[in-house]
Amino acid sequence: MIGLALLGAGRMARVHAKAISAAGGKVITVYDVIGPAAKSLAAETGASVARSVEEALHHAEVNAVLVVTSSDTHVDCILQGIEAGKAVMCEKPLAPTLSDAQRCINALGPQARNVFLAFNRRFDPSHAALKRAVETGEIGNLEQVTITSRDPAPPPLDYLPKSGGLFRDMMIHDFDMARWLLGEEPVSIYSRGSCLVDPQIGKLGDIDTACVALATASGKQAVILNSRRAAYGYDQRIEAFGSAGMVLSDNPRATSVRRYSSTSFGAPDRLFAFYMDRYGDSYRREIETFLSGVATGTPPPVNALDGLRTAYLAEAAGASLRLGQAIELKTNCEASWHE
Amino acid sequence: MIGLALLGAGRMARVHAKAISAAGGKVITVYDVIGPAAKSLAAETGASVARSVEEALHHAEVNAVLVVTSSDTHVDCILQGIEAGKAVMCEKPLAPTLSDAQRCINALGPQARNVFLAFNRRFDPSHAALKRAVETGEIGNLEQVTITSRDPAPPPLDYLPKSGGLFRDMMIHDFDMARWLLGEEPVSIYSRGSCLVDPQIGKLGDIDTACVALATASGKQAVILNSRRAAYGYDQRIEAFGSAGMVLSDNPRATSVRRYSSTSFGAPDRLFAFYMDRYGDSYRREIETFLSGVATGTPPPVNALDGLRTAYLAEAAGASLRLGQAIELKTNCEASWHE
Amino acid sequence: MIGLALLGAGRMARVHAKAISAAGGKVITVYDVIGPAAKSLAAETGASVARSVEEALHHAEVNAVLVVTSSDTHVDCILQGIEAGKAVMCEKPLAPTLSDAQRCINALGPQARNVFLAFNRRFDPSHAALKRAVETGEIGNLEQVTITSRDPAPPPLDYLPKSGGLFRDMMIHDFDMARWLLGEEPVSIYSRGSCLVDPQIGKLGDIDTACVALATASGKQAVILNSRRAAYGYDQRIEAFGSAGMVLSDNPRATSVRRYSSTSFGAPDRLFAFYMDRYGDSYRREIETFLSGVATGTPPPVNALDGLRTAYLAEAAGASLRLGQAIELKTNCEASWHE
Amino acid sequence: MIGLALLGAGRMARVHAKAISAAGGKVITVYDVIGPAAKSLAAETGASVARSVEEALHHAEVNAVLVVTSSDTHVDCILQGIEAGKAVMCEKPLAPTLSDAQRCINALGPQARNVFLAFNRRFDPSHAALKRAVETGEIGNLEQVTITSRDPAPPPLDYLPKSGGLFRDMMIHDFDMARWLLGEEPVSIYSRGSCLVDPQIGKLGDIDTACVALATASGKQAVILNSRRAAYGYDQRIEAFGSAGMVLSDNPRATSVRRYSSTSFGAPDRLFAFYMDRYGDSYRREIETFLSGVATGTPPPVNALDGLRTAYLAEAAGASLRLGQAIELKTNCEASWHE
Repeated sequence: MIGLALLGAGRMARVHAKAISAAGGKVITVYDVIGPAAKSLAAETGASVARSVEEALHHAEVNAVLVVTSSDTHVDCILQGIEAGKAVMCEKPLAPTLSDAQRCINALGPQARNVFLAFNRRFDPSHAALKRAVETGEIGNLEQVTITSRDPAPPPLDYLPKSGGLFRDMMIHDFDMARWLLGEEPVSIYSRGSCLVDPQIGKLGDIDTACVALATASGKQAVILNSRRAAYGYDQRIEAFGSAGMVLSDNPRATSVRRYSSTSFGAPDRLFAFYMDRYGDSYRREIETFLSGVATGTPPPVNALDGLRTAYLAEAAGASLRLGQAIELKTNCEASWHE
Repeated sequence: MIGLALLGAGRMARVHAKAISAAGGKVITVYDVIGPAAKSLAAETGASVARSVEEALHHAEVNAVLVVTSSDTHVDCILQGIEAGKAVMCEKPLAPTLSDAQRCINALGPQARNVFLAFNRRFDPSHAALKRAVETGEIGNLEQVTITSRDPAPPPLDYLPKSGGLFRDMMIHDFDMARWLLGEEPVSIYSRGSCLVDPQIGKLGDIDTACVALATASGKQAVILNSRRAAYGYDQRIEAFGSAGMVLSDNPRATSVRRYSSTSFGAPDRLFAFYMDRYGDSYRREIETFLSGVATGTPPPVNALDGLRTAYLAEAAGASLRLGQAIELKTNCEASWHE
Repeated sequence: MIGLALLGAGRMARVHAKAISAAGGKVITVYDVIGPAAKSLAAETGASVARSVEEALHHAEVNAVLVVTSSDTHVDCILQGIEAGKAVMCEKPLAPTLSDAQRCINALGPQARNVFLAFNRRFDPSHAALKRAVETGEIGNLEQVTITSRDPAPPPLDYLPKSGGLFRDMMIHDFDMARWLLGEEPVSIYSRGSCLVDPQIGKLGDIDTACVALATASGKQAVILNSRRAAYGYDQRIEAFGSAGMVLSDNPRATSVRRYSSTSFGAPDRLFAFYMDRYGDSYRREIETFLSGVATGTPPPVNALDGLRTAYLAEAAGASLRLGQAIELKTNCEASWHE
Repeated sequence: MIGLALLGAGRMARVHAKAISAAGGKVITVYDVIGPAAKSLAAETGASVARSVEEALHHAEVNAVLVVTSSDTHVDCILQGIEAGKAVMCEKPLAPTLSDAQRCINALGPQARNVFLAFNRRFDPSHAALKRAVETGEIGNLEQVTITSRDPAPPPLDYLPKSGGLFRDMMIHDFDMARWLLGEEPVSIYSRGSCLVDPQIGKLGDIDTACVALATASGKQAVILNSRRAAYGYDQRIEAFGSAGMVLSDNPRATSVRRYSSTSFGAPDRLFAFYMDRYGDSYRREIETFLSGVATGTPPPVNALDGLRTAYLAEAAGASLRLGQAIELKTNCEASWHE
């Protein structure tokens, strides 16, 4: 049985804790800067409370570490976990900025491939089925990817300044989806952003509506559409088009009922409200993958380098927005634009 | 070019008249007991007004006759048309009662197979595609058929007494669909009927809600569901289930838009309001089939004998309802139940 | 925490055992006539092995009993469990025959309402959403119910003789759905059955293809269609039609992908293979309902009387099939037909 | 009755000729540089053959002109038609190049608003329903538009050199859709193009796979995806997202059947093969709109200025592709990029 140290005791930590127990792992100890949070989650999971990250990492029964702290502490937690010889899984993003992400990768060296970066959407059954269709050649050669990703409502305004902005906070997932599906690194990026949902967001220097176009060296194209608000719920769709066909990963529904009335003519059931429900399965499958990888010594399917590449895309998207121009992307993730 | 005499100038006559001109036929003359109706339709179609059925039938340029008069005159019009040596197409039903239908068939003799009986639903593109899937073996051996057929609203109450009742007036179409798809005559019928839509319908001795179960000698089953009212529009669906699969002919939609809002999550567009819109294509294709059959001397795909068999089923359904028992059906359409 | 005795250690017992632990209950002891089965499930759940039903029932930590034995022992297990003062949940069917079911009810007296009968489909999210739409008046007055229920493949031939036949073994679930939705007891039943899937089934005196029509005193109608084989998977659909609309509980899908190719044009993903997957959620919700009912002293939403009524309908369906006639149903479940 | 001169007797001319007669108009005379083509279409429509454009335009019974000649003669035909005092409808594009289009507009002056430019997709029932949803405020303020437009197969290679390239030949329709829906002129455009379908297309200097991002001054965004090949048929979809919801104009289907088998689980029917079938309704409604506009003196809903603006967008898309950069768009359609 895998014993885990949880670094962080917030909402996502609780989601992961449940998945850990369902997957047959055991939370051994919990650390959080906010003591009561750690205490409460420790009580629920039958774990001890650690007084420091060090104490948590060096607990004798701990084989693996889950980093679910605030973004600015991810790098340090990862590095300490690796140093302590533990298997490490870290919530996205790898780091708050590109330079931090680069520093992390530099410090990790070859270990970067052993850090499981929690891009949970890769484990969603529908997105994974789409990916499989791409990989097995079901749609021939992939040519165009369209990713639509809209939140039901913007986050609280006081969260936004520390969020890093839409590209780093929200579209980061879509960048990962795009790279994962394209199977090639993008060589150019162009972004447009607007503030249409809430002018307050604009006053904070952020955008709430965005579209990004990516292209690869072989000519594949990807388009990402984001909005911080969707009246009809959490809108998460991917379209992969290829030489032999197309696969859509459409929004799943709460149930399979359809309704007919004088104003509704076979309407499917509502979309899921937000990521907790929508991606519940993905969180469970992600943890299962992490734990079974630890048990069998298999390297994670998504690692810190993916964290670096998505950070690079987010940074470049921001630059493209500010410059009003497309940005050429490099292989080495070094920022190459001048603002 | 085929020249037609229209017997009847009501609503369905107008529908057919349009289809005739689109199909390259020509309405030569129009007869109706209501003179002004004939006059108006004749004017619209550039046809003459006939003063009698005889005059219409013996017009030199008339090759074919379309009988769209009131049900009680169908038999006479058909017989006269055949006697005059014309190709005849007759609106459903063949006759108001089973005995009238039998009389018609007896009088027609072998000519029964040459009278085109206008069961238009056979020409609906979706129902026809389903039939094709059955015939080509796409679903293996057909085993169960489910026909759902609901009108948006009951007809005017003053129409009902002369309608012949739900089984003869409304379910007659579904009986034809069932026979057509089963490819075998039913050997038993069981019906249930209720008055749930409007108590006035019950006072007139009719029902507005019905279900019927049919079975064939080889064990195939068909179920028909009817209602005189559907809040969501004209509901016309068929399901054919077989050893290798299933085909559904679902309700077509006014357009292919889907709507999302805070209360609607991908709702398809509305159903068609009623048969004029829903079955518009079928009326056109029906007339095309009739005219091309006349031109090439091909016997009609649906004929007066189909009119007799459906009349028999409607009569038996009524008997089953009154007796509260299943009715065994005969090959010869002779009423075999005792009430 | 609720402690449970599991009577039976077969496949369904394992399904329930998992749900019990997920719902926060605890399997205390396991009994099965086949010792190794009990031992293995006990080991997996950390429970003891009981040497007899008595021992299991009288274990000090046991508050509740789950009867998952073979059908012919259900009644005895239920009665013993109730006598031992435990909360009892019993897998369907209540008893192998109507007379056994009646004996059980007679012996239970008022306790019949306290026995949770495991008609799991009531707890399926989609069927439950449909039921809610009926109950809240969303579709007005319910008028017609259509239940389609097809297994992917027939059970092993050697299972069939002890199954009690299609009506008792398979359609029993649909009878429960029909009663649950209609909200009234049917007053008549008519059934048709054929052997179209496998002639061996017919040789065993059973059918594999059936349709049944039910009607209530107020004129509501329900139709049930069953087949022991569906090429496309486990087909489980319900349609509820009422004065203000219709709700369909359609087949859920493995994922929400849709596929396009030169032969497929937006095809949804496959149906679930069989009940384990399809109704997985329902088993979990059913156990949660049972355990929370035990904890709060709430009587079960579906009880032994529902088991009696469905047994009555299954028996009547068989009689209707043999007699070729509709059967009038009584309030008191006494078999009223003469064969 | 409106009498029409048809300038051009090719495939699209035939499509329009049918629609004209169905809409109650009359083709009076036909001109084509290829005499036999004119003769044949004249024969079919009961029209005369004109020996020159002038003769066609000055025919006494001609009120309206339909320009369906090759693109390089559009401008001259339009100008001559207007000079002759006729109502003019012209097939897209307005002109082969932006400068030709600008010359046409300059020559037309205020008459530009009276030339009906045949962007037929505006008259498609589904796209029009989507537009209506945008206009009535059903989805609140429009924020993002996604247009996917894929041909089933590339045109013959020998057509491509004279086509003007993908942006002018194919995406021109999508530019019109984007402008129409956005309700504002785009202020920036960015395009990516690849040759993934057929390397021969690349050798001809063209692309076969493209995506374009547009933005307006108020921050609305539109994305267009094009491919010259789709294995599954003619793929024509539009998504309009706004503050209160979303409307999709999805691909309509040949029929409303859905298929289930061991490999297909509710697959809808095939898409339409190409524009003739898919947009058949739009051609009919377009002609009806033109004729009724002529009859009532209503200016056309889409005119030569729309032709100029789409030509400008196509030209700018080409420039963006060559420069690898976004292009700022001007109000006056003057090419503002330097290559």
